[in-house]
Amino acid sequence: MQALVLGEQAGVRSDYPLPAPSRTEALVRVSVAGVCRTDIELSKGYMDFAGVPGHEFVGVVEECVALPGIVGKRVVGEINCPCLDCRLCRAGLTNHCPSRTVLGISGRDGGFAEYVVLPAGNLHEVPDGLSDEEAVFAEPLAAAFRILQQGAVPTDGDVLVMGDGKLGLLAAQVARLVGASVHVVGRHLERAELLRHCSVNFHEAEVTPTHSFDAVVECTGDADALAQALKLCRPGGTVVLKTTTTEPNTLNLTEAVVNEIKLLGSRCGPFAPALRALADGTVRVGGMVEATYDLSDGLAALEHAARSGTLKILIQP
Amino acid sequence: MQALVLGEQAGVRSDYPLPAPSRTEALVRVSVAGVCRTDIELSKGYMDFAGVPGHEFVGVVEECVALPGIVGKRVVGEINCPCLDCRLCRAGLTNHCPSRTVLGISGRDGGFAEYVVLPAGNLHEVPDGLSDEEAVFAEPLAAAFRILQQGAVPTDGDVLVMGDGKLGLLAAQVARLVGASVHVVGRHLERAELLRHCSVNFHEAEVTPTHSFDAVVECTGDADALAQALKLCRPGGTVVLKTTTTEPNTLNLTEAVVNEIKLLGSRCGPFAPALRALADGTVRVGGMVEATYDLSDGLAALEHAARSGTLKILIQP
Repeated sequence: MQALVLGEQAGVRSDYPLPAPSRTEALVRVSVAGVCRTDIELSKGYMDFAGVPGHEFVGVVEECVALPGIVGKRVVGEINCPCLDCRLCRAGLTNHCPSRTVLGISGRDGGFAEYVVLPAGNLHEVPDGLSDEEAVFAEPLAAAFRILQQGAVPTDGDVLVMGDGKLGLLAAQVARLVGASVHVVGRHLERAELLRHCSVNFHEAEVTPTHSFDAVVECTGDADALAQALKLCRPGGTVVLKTTTTEPNTLNLTEAVVNEIKLLGSRCGPFAPALRALADGTVRVGGMVEATYDLSDGLAALEHAARSGTLKILIQP
Repeated sequence: MQALVLGEQAGVRSDYPLPAPSRTEALVRVSVAGVCRTDIELSKGYMDFAGVPGHEFVGVVEECVALPGIVGKRVVGEINCPCLDCRLCRAGLTNHCPSRTVLGISGRDGGFAEYVVLPAGNLHEVPDGLSDEEAVFAEPLAAAFRILQQGAVPTDGDVLVMGDGKLGLLAAQVARLVGASVHVVGRHLERAELLRHCSVNFHEAEVTPTHSFDAVVECTGDADALAQALKLCRPGGTVVLKTTTTEPNTLNLTEAVVNEIKLLGSRCGPFAPALRALADGTVRVGGMVEATYDLSDGLAALEHAARSGTLKILIQP
């Protein structure tokens, strides 16, 4: 099959082996896949990943021994594949299973290919009313819903989302769902349009006053933004960490100690509320796709996605 | 009166003006005061503090218009003096009042002097059975109890305290109170003796396995220890930040994001449980005083306290 491959023989290949599902896995024909900033990091060597990247996809199930009823259905899929047997899995922390594979990120080929394989239990049916181009946002939107799952958004609080990239725009909408007063600080004032349906306050470049926000969601992708987040968060408030970088942060955490700030690492989240919010239209992704590339142009898609300020890039096999 | 003074005319002075309490404040004759690592930092320029340092004290109330019944009582005192009128004070975050003064740290002279003044509401009577040398630990022990107040110690969890200094020894005992399995990693194996009454596991220099502790309490005073704390904490666990330094930390917080670790800044805590634990003997401070200096030798006391590995140094007017 055709696949975009990272590692020693990086590039788009047409002779990549078709993946073979186990009895508990499903074979999915990919309809469309989304490029995430993590894919760019992987292409630069993050995680020493070799194989097919791509962890945001929509597809149609072609084979599934364990769950025959799902064959023919349109699905999205959770990306962590845990052992279900270790101490962390038994404690419900399956997304943190130390021997997990992660779709297109660690030990498992991803969705920048004609076919992808995932455990049947990871799949979620896409509601009929949603287009593929909307449903492909289920994974990043689930990551935004993780912030609610972690209890980090005070329903009657002032929340600042730092960054007006893809995740920032999703996180702002999700924070608004629970009633918080939401502010976004970003570099692209025109993106305020994308949030007009949900009364989010958009600030360009700078936001004041300091020490005033109950929660600050750091989605800039910039290692240096955390120091600013600590200044904007009120004493006793929460800073949600969404940025992963290969460079270290240099900052003085004494401010976090003195102001008793909670810094909360936040990663993958629940798919079900994400799909429901997309289906209900309470979270909207219209206008967030910047371009769609054919899989044969996969490297060009990655290059486009790597440009600063790019919104969502899709890849179609 | 005699007082140890920091700032332009640093040194022990005998002509320092006697502080004058307002109607809501108490004048306290200091019996004994404890040197904290923060006092060492202040002496090096932290907070640009000028005046009398010292925020751990025991004394006897000599004057108090607002609360005449407390005159003659032996007391310890909470160090934050809030306005009680701002948004944060009204939300119960009085220790974070932006216009607060802090005893011996910010805008208010402290206890390395013959007399100290504090709002009457900040004072706590010392139970009869406690010596001054025990009661002077109320303030740092309250900071240890803050960790429980923040809900950071899982009662059925594995807790690692990093650092066997004064705060580490207190935090380990406090974590043990709620039933946690407590480990301490430090450099002074002989200090295991000080914890023998409470079944704490003492490790010298290194502790394994990584990613195994439900909570890690970072009390080393070393900016570089945080990276190690992130490695020792389990996914979804809590790292309590107690270290304040003037130097920045350099670390990659991507590990905190991927493992969804909660980093929790932690500062001042409740005095009442600290005094009760000292009176009950559930927390013990015997053996933790290394030396007592006369106030006239105050600078020597600070020098002694600044040496690596020193336990508690006391100053007596």
